[in-house]
Order: sequence, then C-alpha cells, then structure tokens
Amino acid sequence: MVDSNAKVTLKDVGQQPGHNRDNGFYGQDIISVSQFDRTRLEYIFNVAHEMRVLVERFGSADLLQGKILANLFYEPSTRTSSSFMAAMLRLGGQVIPINNVQYSSVTKGESLPDTVRTLECYADVIVLRHPEVGSAATAARYASKPVINAGDGVGEHPTQALLDHFTIVEELGGVDGLKVAMVGDLKYGRTVHSLTKLLTNYDVEFVFVSPDILRMPEDVLDVVRASGHRFTVTEDVHDVIGEVDVLYVTRVQKERFSDLAEYDRVKDQYVVDPELMQRAKERMIVMHPLPRVNEISYAVDDDPRAAYFRQMRNGMYIRMALLAAVLGRA
Amino acid sequence: MVDSNAKVTLKDVGQQPGHNRDNGFYGQDIISVSQFDRTRLEYIFNVAHEMRVLVERFGSADLLQGKILANLFYEPSTRTSSSFMAAMLRLGGQVIPINNVQYSSVTKGESLPDTVRTLECYADVIVLRHPEVGSAATAARYASKPVINAGDGVGEHPTQALLDHFTIVEELGGVDGLKVAMVGDLKYGRTVHSLTKLLTNYDVEFVFVSPDILRMPEDVLDVVRASGHRFTVTEDVHDVIGEVDVLYVTRVQKERFSDLAEYDRVKDQYVVDPELMQRAKERMIVMHPLPRVNEISYAVDDDPRAAYFRQMRNGMYIRMALLAAVLGRA
Amino acid sequence: MVDSNAKVTLKDVGQQPGHNRDNGFYGQDIISVSQFDRTRLEYIFNVAHEMRVLVERFGSADLLQGKILANLFYEPSTRTSSSFMAAMLRLGGQVIPINNVQYSSVTKGESLPDTVRTLECYADVIVLRHPEVGSAATAARYASKPVINAGDGVGEHPTQALLDHFTIVEELGGVDGLKVAMVGDLKYGRTVHSLTKLLTNYDVEFVFVSPDILRMPEDVLDVVRASGHRFTVTEDVHDVIGEVDVLYVTRVQKERFSDLAEYDRVKDQYVVDPELMQRAKERMIVMHPLPRVNEISYAVDDDPRAAYFRQMRNGMYIRMALLAAVLGRA
Repeated sequence: MVDSNAKVTLKDVGQQPGHNRDNGFYGQDIISVSQFDRTRLEYIFNVAHEMRVLVERFGSADLLQGKILANLFYEPSTRTSSSFMAAMLRLGGQVIPINNVQYSSVTKGESLPDTVRTLECYADVIVLRHPEVGSAATAARYASKPVINAGDGVGEHPTQALLDHFTIVEELGGVDGLKVAMVGDLKYGRTVHSLTKLLTNYDVEFVFVSPDILRMPEDVLDVVRASGHRFTVTEDVHDVIGEVDVLYVTRVQKERFSDLAEYDRVKDQYVVDPELMQRAKERMIVMHPLPRVNEISYAVDDDPRAAYFRQMRNGMYIRMALLAAVLGRA
Repeated sequence: MVDSNAKVTLKDVGQQPGHNRDNGFYGQDIISVSQFDRTRLEYIFNVAHEMRVLVERFGSADLLQGKILANLFYEPSTRTSSSFMAAMLRLGGQVIPINNVQYSSVTKGESLPDTVRTLECYADVIVLRHPEVGSAATAARYASKPVINAGDGVGEHPTQALLDHFTIVEELGGVDGLKVAMVGDLKYGRTVHSLTKLLTNYDVEFVFVSPDILRMPEDVLDVVRASGHRFTVTEDVHDVIGEVDVLYVTRVQKERFSDLAEYDRVKDQYVVDPELMQRAKERMIVMHPLPRVNEISYAVDDDPRAAYFRQMRNGMYIRMALLAAVLGRA
Repeated sequence: MVDSNAKVTLKDVGQQPGHNRDNGFYGQDIISVSQFDRTRLEYIFNVAHEMRVLVERFGSADLLQGKILANLFYEPSTRTSSSFMAAMLRLGGQVIPINNVQYSSVTKGESLPDTVRTLECYADVIVLRHPEVGSAATAARYASKPVINAGDGVGEHPTQALLDHFTIVEELGGVDGLKVAMVGDLKYGRTVHSLTKLLTNYDVEFVFVSPDILRMPEDVLDVVRASGHRFTVTEDVHDVIGEVDVLYVTRVQKERFSDLAEYDRVKDQYVVDPELMQRAKERMIVMHPLPRVNEISYAVDDDPRAAYFRQMRNGMYIRMALLAAVLGRA
C-alpha cells in the first residue's frame, strides 16, 4: 500500500490560492495568432516579462511542479522543442519528449486524434509540431487537455509570432509608432505572415522588402489593408535601412528561383552586414527566426542592435507564459 | 568541495518510515504474468487504485523523488515508453530515456547484459522493451537493480496484461463471475494470451471470438482448461455480444490471410460499431490495447461503455504501482 | 499575471551560502585533459568522492536544482549521454536531451556556433559530443555558458580520462608508485592517450602492450618522456601481467589489420580470461572503457579485481563533480 505517512505535495493548482481560472487562457488551446487581440497579447507579454525577471533572478520556479508536458514532434525542430522543454522545466514541470513518431505507433496507422487522446492520459498539456496544416486544430478538437501549436506545416506557428512580437516590445519598449521592415522571402515565410497579422493590432507602418517573385501574398496584404495600416513595398533593403525600427530578416533560398540569373542578381540585396548596419538607425533591432545561413553575416553578431539571440531567449519566456496561462498558473 | 551547509534531501527511502521492504516486490523484477497470483494481483491493483486517487486529487507525488528510471527501448513504442515515463515523473522520480539503441553502442556489438549492467550504474530501475523473446529475463539475471519487462517480442508484456485486468476491476468492480470475450486475432495477439492467463486466477467465463485461422493457440487453451475454466469458441462476435461483460477487441490484420477472399468474408464480423453496441448489455465495457485502425469505429468513442482510453490511463497507474513497489515505496 | 503569493524557490546559487565562485572551475569550459594539473585533479577527485558518498547514502541531492543541462550529441553514445543525464538528475538538475541533431536544424545548414548560442538561451551548461576534432573548443569559444567536451572525434574525451584516473585512485588509494599497463589498440585508442597524459602528473611507471602496428603514437610517448617517466613496450600481456597494478584493456579490432594472418597470430595475446588473471597480483585492477566484445571474457566479471563496471559508476561521480564545479556548486 502507499504509505499514508508519506509526504504528498499538494500540486493540484486548482486548490491553491495562486490558481487563476479567469485569465482567459485556462484550459484553452493555443492554435492560431487570430486568437490574440491587444488585451490578450498584453496579458501574455506581461506574464512573459515576469518570467524573464524570474529566470534572470532565480533561474527557475516551481509554478508547474507536478505538471507534465507531452512534447509531441512529428518532425524534428531542435530549437522549438528545446525551447518548450526548457520553458516547462524552468517552471518546475516535467516533459515527456516524443520525437520520432514516424517510427512509432503513428506509422502503424494510428490517427492523430487517437495519439493525442492517449497522450492526454499521461500529460497535462500537449505541444504539437506536425507537418500538416490544420493538424493542431484537429488535435485540439479531440483533446480535453490544452494543445499548443508548435507549427503545423505551412499553417501557423503562433508561439514564434508571439516571441517575435514580444521581442519588439522588450527591445523597443512598445510597438505603436514603429516602422517594421520584413525582409527576404515573404512568400513562403510563415513567420513573417503571422507576425504581420499580429502587428496589425497596433499602430505600425510596414515595409515589405523582397524579390518580386517572393513578395508578400495578397491574403496577408489584405489583412494589413483591412486593418487600415500603411505599407510600402520595395526590392532592396538599402532603400529603407535608414528609417526602420525593426529589420526582420528571413532567408532568400536559391531553390525558390527557376531563373538562377535572377537569384544571382538579387541575392546580395538581402544580406545584412556591418556596412548595411552603418546606415541603420542607432536605436533599432535586427531580428531573425534562425537558423540563418549567410543572410546575416557573423560580423553583425556583436552589434548591440543584433537581437536574434535575445529573441531566442524570449521564445522561452513566451512559452513559459503560455504554459503557465493554459494551466491556470499565470 | 561540496558545501556541507547545502541542503541535502533525504531520499534513500530505506531510511524513511514509508519504506516497505516486505511487500513481496521490493527489489524484484517484473518479467512475466506467471509471477502474479491472486494475492499479488490484488496488492498491485490496490496500490494502482491509490495511485489513481493520488493523481486525480494531487496530479503527482514525491514518493520516488531522487530515483532514476532507465527507460531502455530497443524498438519504438511511443505509448508504452510515454506511459512509463509519466508514471515515474508523477511519482517525483526522473527518467533517462534511451530510444535509439540501434544506433548506439549496442550496434557496436555490446551485449544486453553489459548494457544493463552499465545502465544500473546510473539508474535505480530499468524498464526494457526488446524485440527478442527472453531478453527481459536475461537482463534481469545480470542486473542487480529491478528490471521491468515492457514487452519482449512475441514473449510477454506483463504490464499490459496487468493494466487490462486492472481496467476490468476498476470498471466493473471485480472479475469473479464475469463473462469475458476476446475478439479478433487471438493467434498472434500477445495481449490476449497474457490477459487470459491472468484471468484464470479468477472465476471467469471465457469466450474466444476469431476467424478459424486466428484462433487461440492450444497452449493458452490448455492453461484455461487446466485451471478448470469454461470457455466457448465462436467465429462471429454477433453471436455473443448480448451476453458478455467485457469485449476485448484486437485487430484482424489482412496480412495474416493467405486467402484474401476469406479475409473479405470475415472482416466485418470483427468491427465494433454503434449498431453492434446497441445489442450489448447496458453494463459492460469495450477494451482495446490500441492502436486501433478500423476495428472499433470512432462513433463508439463517446459510448460510456468504451473503456479503451480509460484503459490507457490505467496503464499509467499500474506502472506507478509497479515502480513504487519494486523500489520499496508501496 | 504570475501569482505573487506563489512559492518561488531560490535557485540562483550565486545568492546562496553554498556557492563557490573560487574553485577555479566556476563558469569554465572542460575541453581537454591539458587543463588539469595535480591540484585541479585532486580537487575534482575529492568532489567526485563526495558525490559517491552522497549517492550511496542519499541517492541524490538538490545542489543543482533549477539548473538545466543541454545534452547535445551529434553522434550517438548511449553510455556517455546516459552518464551525464544521470549526473545532472542526481544533483537535482534537469536535462534537455538533443540526440538526433543530424535530422534537425543542423542539417539545414546551421553552424555549431549558432546552435550552442541558441541552446545557451535555454540551458545553464552544455555537454557536447561531436564527430569533429576541435568542435568542443569552437563551441566553447562562442558560448558564454560552460561547455563540457563529451568527445570530439579522434580529439579528446576528457571526462573519460578523468573517470579512468579517478577509478585508479578510488580502487587503489592513489596513483603514485603504481605500474600501469595499457593493453590492446594503443594507436587509435583515444582513451589511453588521454589517460596516459593525465597520469604523467604522477609518479607512475607505464607499460605499453600492443601489436607492433598498433603501438602508442610517438607524440604520446614524447609527453611521457618529457615528463621524465619510465615506460616499457611489449607485445604480449603475459610478459607483464604478474607485475602490474592496473591493466587497462582496449579492443584490438580486426579491421585495423591489413594482414589477417598477423591478426590471427596476435589476437589471443590480448584477451583477458581467468587463466591470465591467475597470474596477476592479488591487489590490482582490470579496467576497460566499454563496450567490450571478447577482449575480456565474461568469466572475469565476478573477479573482485574486475573494476570496469565500478569504473562506469565512477563516470557518473566525475560528471557530477564537473557539473557542480562549473556551475559553482562544488
């Protein structure tokens, strides 16, 4: 028998004073950036900022002690999975990492609904990375525990957009009034689509810088227009470097070009190097979702305006905030 | 030097009042269902029930704080490995997951005995999944720490049988007097063999429902006969659906049939759908070891008699009970 | 918001009395055995011994509670990665295991510097196993958090050398005055090179036993000579078995021989079996880095002089000591 004298730590947060069922996130799924308006964004950013302070001062906490995250990755993403794991562990929770589902019961034909319903028997929250659009919404529909979308193919990757947005807030003190340039592959870049949509909640001026064949899709531009925001389109980052507050860089991949002469013509217009940075404002930031190849030269890394590694760190804070929020501890 | 003022938590459970060296499981291996008689079954089921109460009330405990499980999987099984991990974590223990041994020192030719003797240098208990029959017994012979068999090929998978049995107990209040139907592939289904053997410890009436070529092997039937139990054999689940208390469903795989016409003839006799459930008793349960393909239709999932996801959850409780028992904490 | 009443455990060890910034290891990388002189060796061995006492008495501690290790393995090594994980977990820390980097962002072309700078956003210390010589030094140059080399190709594997050395100290009470034989493949055996270098800090007499084509490289012998140590070279372990205090065995691999007749001629000279052990001193130890194939027969395992499994366990203690030291907790 279980020894009745054994110390049992009270962990059901619902029974503790710090528990918050009224934050609007408790028990909810995080599937899409469309779930976030200004109020909800500011709530999460405030919590994420508190998480940052907590980690910088104490390293970790025990807000989620006794809670278990199932970190379910149908495709590898070291960065995102490590970030979620660290977020859960720094809050005192535990993680079941599930990284090779292609080799497991999934390949024997099990459906995603059955997999998430199994995992929620063991875990308190599920983070899902899946190559198919809509998979996170499907998982959320079947699961009774919260599901957080960690990227569903060319669909959404809301925690990336939130950490991007949060980085601008932390670095520049806010978003209203800023001029934000998205640079590189704006056609296939899921991160720039989601971030653009999120930023339309604020008073932002957009600059979209890309080769013509990789320009921002019309459906994203429609969101920008519908929300009454101004935007500029240009092909060369040099045209706008002097006036932007945020330079969000993505990679222009050779494989996107059927005409390689065209690629050779434009590729250097999308490389951020110290020379380009000399023409940038003194108070601005360079962001990148990483991994990078050569679109930002290593020589820029020591520039205080290079924010991309701080951006990574903010990813952990945002994920801490979301995990705490959906589990009712923020 | 290690700071002598540093707080060191007392974790050697042997020195704590809650420690139980006399439960009959302390320091033992869990290799086969043949280790379990009624007394031992009831002990484990009682502990597992307490684990269920503990998880439902508190989420987790710290009974195994400071203990480490080496979760050694020579073949992938997301479900079983996640269940053991969750069990250990919910008891406050930690896990070293070892999932890709085919790529590691094992392929350099290391023997299983050397691998387990290495892992027991680091861990307090070893869970082993291995494709070869008898591997768990081999590992147990060499290891001085407890080894729990998580499936050794076509051999045994005792924790699956225990969780199946426990599910019947939890759902129906006991096993004596029940009529239990095993349905589907009874020839190759390791789980139905083990569960059948376990249930012969009780007053159960068996019904074996399968295509003729997939009927229950004689050696299992011999165990049933030798223990003085009655059993019926039939080919069609419709014949017995109205009278059974437990319908344990397994998949009839097309690949088992050399004559596909035969497969086409029988396949629909082994599908559980709402129509079939209308003819079942009001108080009965449908079980399945999962993963399923189409042998239970999704429309049955919301039927309160569909117990297969609760069965998954019971797997965690059984594994919590076993881990706590072999480590002397139950 | 984060509940201000929630219990937050103080984990920033810099604010606690047990914190030690003056141990010479705090915040440092562990890249090479050349970083260790007698003073530093003895410091680590003392801490490792305390770790052994701690584990044997209490199982684990909470010295590193709230700290996170990123266990970054670019090539599989179950033994080494499990040992580091266990070391971190037994000190109350947590681990992010990253085992399949070949499938992740690394293959998309990310550089090692970017990977470690990302991981240090999440973790407090990084353990790196990488197939390329010099990779650990590269990682350490870019990371601001401590990096511990867990093997960089044919380069170094300092924690293996430290655990080997520590084993001699623990088993025989010290190193000065001992006669240490290295046996087998001394040409390609990274472990014997590093251990030999480490031992030159002490008064040791070396015996190098190998086939001629696998003899100890001149650059290692130069280190031995330069430090004024005596050494003997022989081809047959039988020549020296009666006089050595330490027999460090490595495997002679068939693939190293272009002339298989030569391999067949020598192979039995490098097998340790009970017959050979009969001629060994009563107080001596047999060591092996494992995995072994047939160079030590299983019949030797029960000989009290067979130290190789205790050697494995010492690996955990050494890694506990190093993790605690670089994080300022030893």
